[in-house]
Amino acid sequence: MTDPQIPEGYEDLLQRPLFAHLATVRPDGAPQSNVMWFEWTGDVLRLTHTKNRQKYRNLQHEPRVALSIADPDDQLRFLEIRGVVESIEDDDDTASFYKSLQHRYGEDYEITDIDVRVVVTIRPTRYVAVSGGSVQH
Amino acid sequence: MTDPQIPEGYEDLLQRPLFAHLATVRPDGAPQSNVMWFEWTGDVLRLTHTKNRQKYRNLQHEPRVALSIADPDDQLRFLEIRGVVESIEDDDDTASFYKSLQHRYGEDYEITDIDVRVVVTIRPTRYVAVSGGSVQH
Repeated sequence: MTDPQIPEGYEDLLQRPLFAHLATVRPDGAPQSNVMWFEWTGDVLRLTHTKNRQKYRNLQHEPRVALSIADPDDQLRFLEIRGVVESIEDDDDTASFYKSLQHRYGEDYEITDIDVRVVVTIRPTRYVAVSGGSVQH
Repeated sequence: MTDPQIPEGYEDLLQRPLFAHLATVRPDGAPQSNVMWFEWTGDVLRLTHTKNRQKYRNLQHEPRVALSIADPDDQLRFLEIRGVVESIEDDDDTASFYKSLQHRYGEDYEITDIDVRVVVTIRPTRYVAVSGGSVQH
């Protein structure tokens, strides 16, 4: 499968430390929307999460997800992403991935749940660039 | 059913003309996330939409939705909302509801698809306030 192309001029929304709104589907079929930190590797999105929350159960049940990212500096620029969870792996003994996300977002606090921290890798299957007044209605 | 309570101090995220990230479920079971204008009446959220897009088919198929709203002035304040579509009604001959949303968001442009414009009313069933560093990961 060829990787989908990021719409030209929208790469910055993946590169900047913005917030992604992550849509998942609960086992009962209802959607859930949560605001998440993310890292973009150039190919995949990576999120930190824990094994003991609803989103983790959602992702195990339904690996298809969607994300939307808004540009805080331009209220009419958005990137919508559909994707699939490619892997969920334990973070390491020092939660290195979580720490790298803290650094990306300018935070630094003690991580108290290292034992349940996981790295969620999402492979995009489709990007939709949204701009201008009439698209988001 | 008693209406759920908005977490104290988070009402402004519904009152201000912010963007809601709307999670819906597609007929094939995958989620979708779209950025939307909204109006908050004190009881329900109202969105404008058209009859000829995927979200409309999603809402007809699965009326349960979720929304998340971020505070652009405070990157650690969010409101997550779960709800259900209570009604989908045609906007009127002049798209008055859409026009009122344009006004709320400081926009004013010609509406060229009045004939397919609908008003989607969503009744919240649960609110979750999110604040602080550790919650959104």
